[in-house]
Amino acid sequence: MHHNIEMPNVIEKPYVIFVGDETSPVYTKTGSGIAHWDRESCVGQIRLSAEAANLGLPDMSLEEAIAAGARTLVIGIAVVGGAIPSSMRAVIADALTRGIDVASGTHDRLADDPEFAALAAQSGARISDVRVPPPGLPVGKGAKRSGKRLLTVGTDCALGKKYTALALAQEMTSRGMDATFRATGQTGILISGGGVPIDAVVADFVSGAAETLSPDAAETHWDIIEGQGAILHPGYAAVSMGLLMGSQPDAIVVCTDATRETIVGWPDFALPSIQEIIDLTVRIGSVVNPDIRVVGISANTSALSDAEREDYLSRLSQEHGVPAVDSVATGVGPIVDAVQS
Amino acid sequence: MHHNIEMPNVIEKPYVIFVGDETSPVYTKTGSGIAHWDRESCVGQIRLSAEAANLGLPDMSLEEAIAAGARTLVIGIAVVGGAIPSSMRAVIADALTRGIDVASGTHDRLADDPEFAALAAQSGARISDVRVPPPGLPVGKGAKRSGKRLLTVGTDCALGKKYTALALAQEMTSRGMDATFRATGQTGILISGGGVPIDAVVADFVSGAAETLSPDAAETHWDIIEGQGAILHPGYAAVSMGLLMGSQPDAIVVCTDATRETIVGWPDFALPSIQEIIDLTVRIGSVVNPDIRVVGISANTSALSDAEREDYLSRLSQEHGVPAVDSVATGVGPIVDAVQS
Repeated sequence: MHHNIEMPNVIEKPYVIFVGDETSPVYTKTGSGIAHWDRESCVGQIRLSAEAANLGLPDMSLEEAIAAGARTLVIGIAVVGGAIPSSMRAVIADALTRGIDVASGTHDRLADDPEFAALAAQSGARISDVRVPPPGLPVGKGAKRSGKRLLTVGTDCALGKKYTALALAQEMTSRGMDATFRATGQTGILISGGGVPIDAVVADFVSGAAETLSPDAAETHWDIIEGQGAILHPGYAAVSMGLLMGSQPDAIVVCTDATRETIVGWPDFALPSIQEIIDLTVRIGSVVNPDIRVVGISANTSALSDAEREDYLSRLSQEHGVPAVDSVATGVGPIVDAVQS
Repeated sequence: MHHNIEMPNVIEKPYVIFVGDETSPVYTKTGSGIAHWDRESCVGQIRLSAEAANLGLPDMSLEEAIAAGARTLVIGIAVVGGAIPSSMRAVIADALTRGIDVASGTHDRLADDPEFAALAAQSGARISDVRVPPPGLPVGKGAKRSGKRLLTVGTDCALGKKYTALALAQEMTSRGMDATFRATGQTGILISGGGVPIDAVVADFVSGAAETLSPDAAETHWDIIEGQGAILHPGYAAVSMGLLMGSQPDAIVVCTDATRETIVGWPDFALPSIQEIIDLTVRIGSVVNPDIRVVGISANTSALSDAEREDYLSRLSQEHGVPAVDSVATGVGPIVDAVQS
C-alpha cells in the first residue's frame, strides 16, 4: 500500500507490535489487523507470556526489534477499561527512553500519562494517540480536488467498511493501479500509518477533516476511504454525513450484512435498505461531485451457506446493476473490474 | 419564554449587559438580541463611553446592576480578534471578585484567562463560556421522547433560523401554548439562558447533544429548536444532520432567502431548492420520527418590495401547501396556526 507523508497523524514504520500478556484474539484485533494488512512493515511482536495471542510475527524483545529497524512500538491491544495494563508499562517506558515512538489507539491518551510524557520529552520520541484528531483542521471548502476517490458506506456500523476499503486498495495496488487506503478510525490509522479519527473531530470540521485526508492527487490515483457509521444511523449519521461531503467520492461501495435486520445496539431501528442508502448517498454526494456513482456492494455473508451466498449476491447484483461481493469469501475483484471499466 | 433549569449550560438571570466602548451595532448584536428577545431579564446595560452602542436598557454601573438584582454580567459584544478588549477587563474582574457570574460567547475562553480564573475560584463566581459544550454528552439513542418538537432548518446558513425559532416560541407563548426556545448557538444560548453550542460538539455526540437539549416533556409542550447550517451545506452538513437526528422533530419550518442564489461564503454552490430541503429532511427525520411534517416556510424578503413580497410568499405557500411568512415583515402567526390545526 502507498504511504503519503503529507497524511495527518503519520506514524513511522516499521512497527513492532506489542501484545503484552493479552490472550484474547478479540482484544488483539488491532495487532492482528496490522499483521494481516501490512505484514512487511512489522519486524516482529513482543509478547510477555507464552499464552499471549500470537499474531504470527517473529517473537522478539524490544532490543531485538530496535536492532531489526523498528521505529514505532504499536500497542496491539484494545483495552476495555481504558488504562494500559500495568504489565505493559515497563516496555513502553523502555521504548520511549530509547527514543522509539509509541503509537496507541486506546481510549486513555498515553501522552497524558505523566511518566510516559516525561520520558518522551527527554528522548524526543513521539507518542501517537491515534484517537486524537490533528489540530488546526479547517471547515470544508467543497472545492473539487484532483484524483479519484472511493468511499465505503454502509447500512450500519460494523459490517466491513474498513475491511472492504483495505481489500479494494490491496486489489488495486496488486493490479498496478495507484491507490492509497485512507483511514478514518484508530485501527485503520495504525494499519496504514496515518489518517484522521473522523468521529472524534468537532462537528464543524468533519467535512474539512475528510478533505484534508484525501488531498489533491494525480488524475489516475485512487484514494480508498474507510467509511464510518451510516447516513441514516440514529447515533452516528453526523459522522457519515461530514465524511461523505468532504470525501467528494467518484465511487461508492455499499457495505451491508446479509442477515442483519436491525441497527447493532439500536434494536428498535430497522436496517435501512441498500437502495435507500444509495439514493441518499448519491443525492447528497452529488452536491460536491456530480459524477458520483455506485460501483459495488460488499456484503458480510458469513451466516449463509455457499449456495445461499451465491444466490444472495447474484440477486443483489441484478437488483442494483453493480457487482455484489463478500470481501472475505469472494474477494473484491469484480468491484475493481467495475472501477476500471 | 420558559426556562428549564435542567437545560445544559444554564446561565443565571437577570442579566446586566456589558457593551464596553463598542460603538458598532453589528458587533453588539449579541447584546441587542438579548435586549430584544428577553428584555424583562435585563436589569440594564453597562457602557464605558457615551458613544458606545445603546441597547435601549437603563445605563448603570456594576454596583447599581448588582443592587438591581443582576446575577450575571453578559459580554454583549462579538469580538473579531477573539480576545476581550483591555478596556473591558476591569469591570469583568470586578464582577468576578464580587461573586457575580460572567457569561461570554467570545471565541477566546474567559475561563482560560488566568486572572479571571483565579478571581472566579476565589469568589465562587461562575464563568460561562457558551461556545464550550457541556462535558459528558452521550451518543444519540434515537428513543422517542414525550412532548412535541419543532426544528427550523434552512437552505443555507445565516437566513433567519434563530430569529424564526425565537419568533415562533414567542408567538406560541403569547397564545398561551407551552413552548420553550432551545438554543444551539452562542447568541441563542445567551438570549435564552441555556443550550448547547452544537457545532462545537465532537461528531460522535452531535445527535446525543440534540437529544439532551430537548428532553422528555409534557405531551402538549413544544420545544422550538434553533437550526444550524443546512443539510446540503458543503461545510456544515454534519452539524445539521446530527441536530436533525437528535431533535426528532414533529414539525419543521424551512428558512430561506428570497434573493440568495448561492451558499454564503461558498459561491460555487447553488442554493438548494426548498423542495430538496423538505424531501431530504423529511426522509432523514422520519428515521427517528415517522410523523415529521413541514408546517411552514420562513423567508427573508428584505430585498423585495411589499408587492413582490406578497407575490413571492403566496407563490411559496401554494407550491408547498403550507404557510409562507417573513418572520420580521409579516410575523410567524400563520405558521403557529398551522401547528395548532
